[in-house]
Amino acid sequence: MADSPNCDLKSLSPLQLFERVTEQGEKVRALKAGKAPKDEIDAAVRLLLSLKLSYKTTTGQDYQAGLPPKDLVLINNGTTKEEDEDLVDPWNVQTSNAKGVDYDKLIVRFGSSKIDTDLINRIERATGQKPHHFLRRGIFFSHRDMDQVLDAYENKKPFYLYTGRGPSSQAMHVGHLIPFMFTKWLQEVFDVPLVIQLTDDEKYLWKDMTIEKAYEYARENAKDIIACGFDVNKTFIFSDLDYLGTSAGFYKNIVKVQKHVTFNQVKGIFGFTDSDCIGKISFPAIQAAPSFSSSFPQIFNGKENIQCLIPCAIDQDPYFRMTRDVAPRIGQPKPALLHSVFFPALQGAQTKMSASDPNSSIFLTDTPKQIKTKINKHAFSGGRDTIEEHRKYGGNCDVDVSFMYLTFFLEDDDRLEQLKQAYTSGELLTGELKKVLIETMQPLVAAHQERRKQVTDEIVKQFMTPRKLAFEF
Amino acid sequence: MADSPNCDLKSLSPLQLFERVTEQGEKVRALKAGKAPKDEIDAAVRLLLSLKLSYKTTTGQDYQAGLPPKDLVLINNGTTKEEDEDLVDPWNVQTSNAKGVDYDKLIVRFGSSKIDTDLINRIERATGQKPHHFLRRGIFFSHRDMDQVLDAYENKKPFYLYTGRGPSSQAMHVGHLIPFMFTKWLQEVFDVPLVIQLTDDEKYLWKDMTIEKAYEYARENAKDIIACGFDVNKTFIFSDLDYLGTSAGFYKNIVKVQKHVTFNQVKGIFGFTDSDCIGKISFPAIQAAPSFSSSFPQIFNGKENIQCLIPCAIDQDPYFRMTRDVAPRIGQPKPALLHSVFFPALQGAQTKMSASDPNSSIFLTDTPKQIKTKINKHAFSGGRDTIEEHRKYGGNCDVDVSFMYLTFFLEDDDRLEQLKQAYTSGELLTGELKKVLIETMQPLVAAHQERRKQVTDEIVKQFMTPRKLAFEF
Repeated sequence: MADSPNCDLKSLSPLQLFERVTEQGEKVRALKAGKAPKDEIDAAVRLLLSLKLSYKTTTGQDYQAGLPPKDLVLINNGTTKEEDEDLVDPWNVQTSNAKGVDYDKLIVRFGSSKIDTDLINRIERATGQKPHHFLRRGIFFSHRDMDQVLDAYENKKPFYLYTGRGPSSQAMHVGHLIPFMFTKWLQEVFDVPLVIQLTDDEKYLWKDMTIEKAYEYARENAKDIIACGFDVNKTFIFSDLDYLGTSAGFYKNIVKVQKHVTFNQVKGIFGFTDSDCIGKISFPAIQAAPSFSSSFPQIFNGKENIQCLIPCAIDQDPYFRMTRDVAPRIGQPKPALLHSVFFPALQGAQTKMSASDPNSSIFLTDTPKQIKTKINKHAFSGGRDTIEEHRKYGGNCDVDVSFMYLTFFLEDDDRLEQLKQAYTSGELLTGELKKVLIETMQPLVAAHQERRKQVTDEIVKQFMTPRKLAFEF
Repeated sequence: MADSPNCDLKSLSPLQLFERVTEQGEKVRALKAGKAPKDEIDAAVRLLLSLKLSYKTTTGQDYQAGLPPKDLVLINNGTTKEEDEDLVDPWNVQTSNAKGVDYDKLIVRFGSSKIDTDLINRIERATGQKPHHFLRRGIFFSHRDMDQVLDAYENKKPFYLYTGRGPSSQAMHVGHLIPFMFTKWLQEVFDVPLVIQLTDDEKYLWKDMTIEKAYEYARENAKDIIACGFDVNKTFIFSDLDYLGTSAGFYKNIVKVQKHVTFNQVKGIFGFTDSDCIGKISFPAIQAAPSFSSSFPQIFNGKENIQCLIPCAIDQDPYFRMTRDVAPRIGQPKPALLHSVFFPALQGAQTKMSASDPNSSIFLTDTPKQIKTKINKHAFSGGRDTIEEHRKYGGNCDVDVSFMYLTFFLEDDDRLEQLKQAYTSGELLTGELKKVLIETMQPLVAAHQERRKQVTDEIVKQFMTPRKLAFEF
């Protein structure tokens, strides 16, 4: 397949793009009407589809013949999105670049810090462990105050980990595992307590879903999280709907945050409007509160000032920018953060995977056959159109989704480097690269399913019961 | 004392009033400079003070020489206040009428129903008890769906009572007792469960106060409430800060309400702005949620649809208009309401009593001497300036605060009627009427203090522990 045409289209305005799609549609119709050669028609259709995709990523709207794009104001951190800027907030990730979001730009825009070799080396020295391949490969690429966490750790001061998930559907995809796989590694090398928030209240507020359904998803998702191999003696998983009604400290921190954040602020940070329900407007405080150890008096013995470290995808950063802004005003330490890149959809790195489109992702419930079919049919390729061209020019790993997936899931650095060279040189064909991915994902998903089967309701209950963990505070 | 000059001033605009105050100030200065007779100066000063009071109640601002009134937009139920309309919302009560708020107009504006003789008679028939003097005297004057509560009661269907208090300071005044005295009577004649919400979270959000202080006030106020004589087997008192962290059902109802109310709606109902904190914006859901029996699974055995009846001052109605709007959309019955008039400040019926001004009220902590001094010194009189004039023209019970207080606290109907006639005819002097009030309030407050002393921390804990009450559901 040819390189994505998006590179050339980046400089076009929505209206110009609209005209290009319309033109190309007419061209396809003319070719078909003139009974042009199949190859020629196919190429024209491929370009049309690419143009439509570009149109959608640029405008956020599906192309509709005869309906030019509406004026759009994308709210992002209180500013209007510049034309070539990526849109990243907790509900949207949009980029017009097939390589995905420009993360270096995001670091500048969000005001976070790059995870550089110095920091990775320092983590290695502090823990005595080889850094996780997510660190080595830049999958966790950005941080806030990780050096302070290491300072504290080296001085034997305690900290804890906090991550979470919005349980929007029963089935999770492999991308959902990224923060949990990394968090598990962090927990093991630092030996610290971990709290995992399931924001079933958020899902109830945002989706057309009953409270009961949201809570059910939370419990189902907890099984997949537990199946990552967390230690029940060191990990507390909680549903908001559950835990808010059982914790003396959690609501107090929520209301403290809610007192110190105005509607103007959440409007700027999250793009809320006057038509949004008051539940959405006040929700950011509920995601903020677990950053403070006093939300878990049963774990931290009521101690108020234990440092928190949050591994999460970069789209969750707005919540914690807000939290860090509030923290000193309520006498609490600012949480530190480790940010990951987004996990790409099979169709390409322009958007985040979506749990609502079964073909956009490999789900943790997929059979080996489904995994094979999905990868073969849907994984966007950086290879060339014909074998001859591919042998001659080589594939493009920067946009090839199969290769991207392997950087996430193939732990062997040497093997990955060999694949990259072979694919880039044209030695390895798209089908062969996909085969390596299939053979990587099938046992990984099967093993997860096997572990998940062992997770009984009783085990979920243990993880979700507020209790002391195996640490003294 | 002469009749309040406010009646003549009601038709004046803020600017016209400003000019009248300025003129009168100049007149006083001229009289003093000209060494006019003391009587004449005193009369001019009294008029000046009255004019200043009118100015303040009309504009909400203190008169400042040389500073004409700013344009004011009083937000009330989403509409701009008309010039002669009273302002009534949960944080403000303002009227330019010395008789107090025009309650008949309020019923029309709020869309509630008047508690008429038919309804009072029906309550008497249903309960077999003489109606409380708060009903007989129009102190509880308005309702929503009380007839439906009686329908249900007559058909042996259960209901429950819900009232509350925002614990803003350690000491409560006698006006704070009104809803509790009436609620106690309702509970006794209907024999139903009662829940009492202490909105310590609200006070933390609105005031410059720590969470710990708000919670402490809640517990102190609970003692005064318990001292009204509630039955611990039939009554559950809760602090939001406490109960939210202990109830499975409460938060679920809060988040349900929060999903179904937009910022636009609370802006319209409560006058919130973009600069308000998100805690205030979402708080109305927390006052709404106790209207649904599923917020108290321990009392109602998890039953979702027990009818709720809320006795409260009319200024709390906006919360429950909102609640009644949301209820059917979350599959819950609308709460019914009984509304009371406001308890007047000693200085007059133009404003609600304020717990922050010790001279505006008789506090439950006042000594007999303090009560005597406050009434003699501060209770606004409807009597005439001189004994001669009073004997000739009689006093005005409609604006006399001592008489108003007696309608609240003197239970003997015949005695009250005698006092009214004697005062109106001029037979009874202001000092004599005040003496009756002093002799009514001193033993009432002393008895309250005596009962409050018996309320130990252990008893408070019993009332505030979530538990089953003496009713089967």
